[in-house]
Amino acid sequence: MILEENIGSVRLITLNNFSKYNIINEDLEIAIIKALMAAEHDEAVKSLVVYGGENRSFSAGGNYNEIKKLRGEAAERWVDRLVELYRTVLEVNKPTVAAVDGYAIGIGFQFAMMFDRRIMSADACFVMPELKQGICCSLGAAILHFTHGYTTMQEIIYRCGEMNARRCLDYRLINQITERELLVSAAIGHANLLAAYPRAVFSHTKRAMNKPFIQTLERSGQESKLLQKKFFASHANKHGTQKSSLNLT
Amino acid sequence: MILEENIGSVRLITLNNFSKYNIINEDLEIAIIKALMAAEHDEAVKSLVVYGGENRSFSAGGNYNEIKKLRGEAAERWVDRLVELYRTVLEVNKPTVAAVDGYAIGIGFQFAMMFDRRIMSADACFVMPELKQGICCSLGAAILHFTHGYTTMQEIIYRCGEMNARRCLDYRLINQITERELLVSAAIGHANLLAAYPRAVFSHTKRAMNKPFIQTLERSGQESKLLQKKFFASHANKHGTQKSSLNLT
Amino acid sequence: MILEENIGSVRLITLNNFSKYNIINEDLEIAIIKALMAAEHDEAVKSLVVYGGENRSFSAGGNYNEIKKLRGEAAERWVDRLVELYRTVLEVNKPTVAAVDGYAIGIGFQFAMMFDRRIMSADACFVMPELKQGICCSLGAAILHFTHGYTTMQEIIYRCGEMNARRCLDYRLINQITERELLVSAAIGHANLLAAYPRAVFSHTKRAMNKPFIQTLERSGQESKLLQKKFFASHANKHGTQKSSLNLT
Repeated sequence: MILEENIGSVRLITLNNFSKYNIINEDLEIAIIKALMAAEHDEAVKSLVVYGGENRSFSAGGNYNEIKKLRGEAAERWVDRLVELYRTVLEVNKPTVAAVDGYAIGIGFQFAMMFDRRIMSADACFVMPELKQGICCSLGAAILHFTHGYTTMQEIIYRCGEMNARRCLDYRLINQITERELLVSAAIGHANLLAAYPRAVFSHTKRAMNKPFIQTLERSGQESKLLQKKFFASHANKHGTQKSSLNLT
Repeated sequence: MILEENIGSVRLITLNNFSKYNIINEDLEIAIIKALMAAEHDEAVKSLVVYGGENRSFSAGGNYNEIKKLRGEAAERWVDRLVELYRTVLEVNKPTVAAVDGYAIGIGFQFAMMFDRRIMSADACFVMPELKQGICCSLGAAILHFTHGYTTMQEIIYRCGEMNARRCLDYRLINQITERELLVSAAIGHANLLAAYPRAVFSHTKRAMNKPFIQTLERSGQESKLLQKKFFASHANKHGTQKSSLNLT
Repeated sequence: MILEENIGSVRLITLNNFSKYNIINEDLEIAIIKALMAAEHDEAVKSLVVYGGENRSFSAGGNYNEIKKLRGEAAERWVDRLVELYRTVLEVNKPTVAAVDGYAIGIGFQFAMMFDRRIMSADACFVMPELKQGICCSLGAAILHFTHGYTTMQEIIYRCGEMNARRCLDYRLINQITERELLVSAAIGHANLLAAYPRAVFSHTKRAMNKPFIQTLERSGQESKLLQKKFFASHANKHGTQKSSLNLT
């Protein structure tokens, strides 16, 4: 499900889920968290690159059909798990780089926002299609509001459209565009650059930077769960079979 | 004062005040709020477009000469009324689009910022001339700080100059530029796009997005009123006839 | 150490430290604060321009070798002094303009961010090299997060590289680029423009704008000092001679 190898002192973590879209399910989440922690605690590792694999997507997010069916405790646990996944990336003290090829969709997009740097293949695209898919995007809104401000967040979430590399750079969603063939080596280069800074200085600065991000995620996670309860309390009885749910990303 | 018509399921609300600049006074505010609420509660309406009318301005804001004369309770009520107007737009659960032609000045500019999308005629312009007009811009500062960040807010408010469509797009103040002749139909197109998302999912996401915006408006309104009191307590006696007041937008 | 002259109603404050890089030490800080207060209280002065002098840098920041040696109370006092310097600029009620030539590095960069406007020579550059220099950048992160948002802050601080005028304008770090020969007169022009607004209206608007900035600085200053204590408590004994410290800018 996950491939791990060292390129010099860079731990390259390749998501290798059953499908080439790297759909995020609970098993993959657990595997990612485990791989991040292992790299964090391995003295030989100075930085991390997360990649979706050759001819594969970084991550097309969750399975929308399953997400839409979530109710009650299962829906709350879903929010908690996402927050835990995102938080784990933010709390890695070593430099982290996302190497994005193919698609970064929904929670795959959100996951990518947790890294210190995002390098993007010229052919890749980011999409936040939650509203179109019938899924409430309150956690995604909180993340993009934090990273890019209210107006850019609003434009991305209300558009729901594919954003190519040029547009992603224009929004500053990513740090660099490269040819697909050079994606991994470019990401490794960036990881090595960040790892060249004195380690304690980098990690203390990063913790200071990311502290308000983590607070935002936790507050938004709590609010998302409350919103969900309210939604089902008020709507569940009115509509027999619901076409659209309020499951949250 | 206000024209209302349905184009399909879009409620087109055209501000039609006595002057072609759509100066915002209390009567127009009340009429706008009433029209927004009517559209919100009309089951046949799926989205709203607000427009200033053909060969008219979206809104040139308040009457600066009157605003400058406001004192005491009248000045406080002025702030409360603005916050209520802005808040009402933000609380509409259906998609809202501003179709901006001519001028969007001062509180007309601020009003436009409350919509989910802003479509702008290529010939239109935005201006925040408060300082030049001798009016304190603390509420405007809070709004632009929230939507576009401290630095862009500072640049816009300290410049006081006209911003053409190109510059507005550059600042991401608007979502699209169109030819004047296509403005209303483009705005209706955007309204229909947003209304195509499942209704409950859209409205819950929008509420989550706009909650911190509403909190910001209310906090800034309170602070603006305090500032005003302090200002008049300290300055009123020193200067006989005041050339510049501290009335706030 | 500081030259002061009036160009019409503009107070031109020229940093004139022993080196042409205007290294900021305690003496220069005190002199800057004194000059700012003098201009603020001089009725003949309507606005301020701070400049690094001909063929000199705006400010290359602190002396990194000295900063890295700071420990305990000396390190805490360092943070307090920086916050006081920055806060003093933000609290000047009259318009303030930074005229940046040569280098604006580290705390010189941060200092420049406190002004109402930044005019930059086409040959100048901004650099935030703290991480590369082995210095934690938590205060710098808080400042750039406040002024430019999380993502731009992260990119600038993790890059550590020189940013030329074009890039600075692209990030909106500055308001205008001019030829070096026109820098001072351009800055004076901007100062006069801002001073043309009614004085009480400008100063009340500026105070409302800068209040959250000052709160951010103070909170970050407190956190920086706590971080420092924690760092030395956990690391001091492990490493005999420390190559990298956690001194904070």
